[in-house]
Amino acid sequence: MKTPVLLICVCSLLCSADAFAEAIPEDVRDQAASLRDAAMQDTMAYELVASLTQEVGPRLAGSPGDKAAVAWAIAKLESLGFERVHADEVEVPHWDRGTLDVRITSPYEQALVATSLGGSWGTAQTGIDAEVVRVASLAELRALSSEDLAGRIAFVDHVMERHKTGAGYGPSSRIRGCGHVVAAERGAVATVIRSAGTSSHRFPHTGSMLRERKPGKIPAIALSNADADILAYAVNSGEPVSLRMHSTARFLSNEMSANVVGEVKGQGALADELVILAAHLDSWDLGTGAIDDGTGVAIVTTAAKMIMDLDEAPRRTLRVILYANEEFGLSGARSYAEHHAHKIDKHTIGMEADFGPGRVWQLSSRVADDALDIIDELHELLIPIGVERGDNKAGGGADIGPLRRMGMPVFGLRQDGSEYFDYHHTADDTLDKVDRDDLNQNVAAYVTAAYVAANIERDFGRLPPDDSQYSCAAEFD
Amino acid sequence: MKTPVLLICVCSLLCSADAFAEAIPEDVRDQAASLRDAAMQDTMAYELVASLTQEVGPRLAGSPGDKAAVAWAIAKLESLGFERVHADEVEVPHWDRGTLDVRITSPYEQALVATSLGGSWGTAQTGIDAEVVRVASLAELRALSSEDLAGRIAFVDHVMERHKTGAGYGPSSRIRGCGHVVAAERGAVATVIRSAGTSSHRFPHTGSMLRERKPGKIPAIALSNADADILAYAVNSGEPVSLRMHSTARFLSNEMSANVVGEVKGQGALADELVILAAHLDSWDLGTGAIDDGTGVAIVTTAAKMIMDLDEAPRRTLRVILYANEEFGLSGARSYAEHHAHKIDKHTIGMEADFGPGRVWQLSSRVADDALDIIDELHELLIPIGVERGDNKAGGGADIGPLRRMGMPVFGLRQDGSEYFDYHHTADDTLDKVDRDDLNQNVAAYVTAAYVAANIERDFGRLPPDDSQYSCAAEFD
Repeated sequence: MKTPVLLICVCSLLCSADAFAEAIPEDVRDQAASLRDAAMQDTMAYELVASLTQEVGPRLAGSPGDKAAVAWAIAKLESLGFERVHADEVEVPHWDRGTLDVRITSPYEQALVATSLGGSWGTAQTGIDAEVVRVASLAELRALSSEDLAGRIAFVDHVMERHKTGAGYGPSSRIRGCGHVVAAERGAVATVIRSAGTSSHRFPHTGSMLRERKPGKIPAIALSNADADILAYAVNSGEPVSLRMHSTARFLSNEMSANVVGEVKGQGALADELVILAAHLDSWDLGTGAIDDGTGVAIVTTAAKMIMDLDEAPRRTLRVILYANEEFGLSGARSYAEHHAHKIDKHTIGMEADFGPGRVWQLSSRVADDALDIIDELHELLIPIGVERGDNKAGGGADIGPLRRMGMPVFGLRQDGSEYFDYHHTADDTLDKVDRDDLNQNVAAYVTAAYVAANIERDFGRLPPDDSQYSCAAEFD
Repeated sequence: MKTPVLLICVCSLLCSADAFAEAIPEDVRDQAASLRDAAMQDTMAYELVASLTQEVGPRLAGSPGDKAAVAWAIAKLESLGFERVHADEVEVPHWDRGTLDVRITSPYEQALVATSLGGSWGTAQTGIDAEVVRVASLAELRALSSEDLAGRIAFVDHVMERHKTGAGYGPSSRIRGCGHVVAAERGAVATVIRSAGTSSHRFPHTGSMLRERKPGKIPAIALSNADADILAYAVNSGEPVSLRMHSTARFLSNEMSANVVGEVKGQGALADELVILAAHLDSWDLGTGAIDDGTGVAIVTTAAKMIMDLDEAPRRTLRVILYANEEFGLSGARSYAEHHAHKIDKHTIGMEADFGPGRVWQLSSRVADDALDIIDELHELLIPIGVERGDNKAGGGADIGPLRRMGMPVFGLRQDGSEYFDYHHTADDTLDKVDRDDLNQNVAAYVTAAYVAANIERDFGRLPPDDSQYSCAAEFD
């Protein structure tokens, strides 16, 4: 039995070596590996995220910081030598958090640390005084009637689970997105949620809520985990608990922002085909947007710059897109997709970095089945930096989502999100949360993938169209 | 050579066994060990700190929360069965933090997360706009002249070191206490310090500053570590950096607060001698005062309650003192010492818990030399719960400091402060930072020490008087 097994092994090795040579030619493979190894040593990525966070800081769509970020990005891409650097104007909403005061008034007084969810309505000048009804999930909230909730404040007290993939964020962000809609349908006057985050520090977590006009016009706020504990303690005492709430959150007039774009031009027959490197330039207003998405901006810009600095231009064009207003409605992503729909077939593949500075631990993809051998070979190149092989169901990211749904294949370079939701969407999203070595490993993964995608003859096929939509209806829970 | 060594060992064992039997009688030792072991299983301490933090929360001297805390403590000590429960009224200052807005205005705009130091003056209505001068230490600040600082803002950018003993807090809290005095002497218009804390989260650290009337009347604020990084980044860019600052911090009229006292009465000839168990009831206004000093309140109250619940009353009286306004001038400690000076000789020994919920890792003391054998034997009782033997130079704690300086001996049950300054004096001082098992270990240490002190025949002698005073003069740096 020994000999046949050995033969099969040898054959298998030879076959895979053959396949390897076929999808990614040796010279491309060698250059990609060399870029990867150089990135692991050190890159300029940390300096980029430091510059964006320390000089610009918070950059919520429509705010002065947003305009400063666009100016910063234009200047930075130009100074780095990108070509066709330009700002594609995008109209964005301008929501203002204003002030928020929330306190338990009965059975005893205590002020709570809270913040408005993005897009929340404010209260009337007189504020809201009402009794609290606590539930532990969206399902429990749906099970209540207007008899339970009319005139009351719904407190959705769901504790987010920590997970490398960020899997706990799904249920928590759905409560954030839809809790107020379900509560308002049942007559509640406000919604209070436990933050959709894993921080054990006293930071409330913001993020967008679905702004359905009917019947959702009630304030929606999030308590930090510690403050949700205080409110839960009061409710568990068995006595009726009342909250007072006053918020000046409101919308101002729409503003102009921009997707900032820069390219590394390809050369030769494939030069009009695009490899999209995406991140978003905006951030929430509470933190300085270091991990969301300063690191993404730094990763994709640095990866493209490293390829720009090679002696030879890539075959395909690398297009870096730093999107406007990802956080509060994907304005830039929608605008780009709309304006480039007629050229969607030239978008060979997209990759997005928008999950913080945690190391890339998995390569997933969504490509045509007959391009999976390229992914396999690309994965071989990423094994030395600790990357596992994932499936072919990658989402790719929020900003390139519209392009993917129009048929563009995507890489999913999945980052370790174990700590991401400790900081994400809070005031604690600051530069000190970024580890330089982890960031360089990200650049290594992105530069490898981008270089291969830009320089192989073959492409990744096209994806079937997908027009799925988000909804707060129960059947989508 | 073998025999003599063996003989010495045997003799040494016998001798120490003899000494052991002498200082702490066997029945006292057995009961103390039994209390210690029971406390390690579980105690009511966690429920106490939960009740204080979740129901009362912030309780800055003079604030409504402070009055609520006094009422809470009276009710709690009475319901637990303490004797002679009473509120010893104490006049306290009432400082109000107000609002604070600080932002870099040049070379670019960025708002910073900051808080006023306790007792800071506010700014004029028009605020302060001035250039920043950065130094890394108090010594560097002292080395500047009024030419360097006049009309400018001093930024003292000292990074606090993490240490089990909290050793890094000395230099950092001295900058907090005296930075504005030194800066004002040189004409500065405000002082900004990096927080005197080790938190890697975005919480500025408050705490009292020395309120010298002349020439110190300038606002003094602290930046979170992340925000101090942002300001340092700007200064390091080489361009002049300007800050705008507006603060409404101010003093209101003094208020009445109280030391809340309860006793477990002794029985027999030693009943008028006191074993003092101290903690402080007030807290800073930013957090809920869980680790500073809710845990202390819980530890000493629980230790006394466990002794109260024994079949036999202690020989000496246990006096639990929950002091008023430790944080902002030791009002309660000074008042108690003044009113009990004539009975100082009846204060046999004091122990204070005011360093969070970290495990007790060392027994130090300050007792007469001829009482050190008691400390040695007490230490033997604490070895099973991980306590090392310390020196005889214990400070004992801030609140019992005045009594110690009048001659009262103290135990120093030193708690592990490795993480204490991550939360201390910040909004992040909340219940979730308290570990139930660690808290029980603290109760175990305190109940052992208190039981022994209350039930042995001998006392701890007296200490020589000490009238040292705090000063911002350079020679005390």
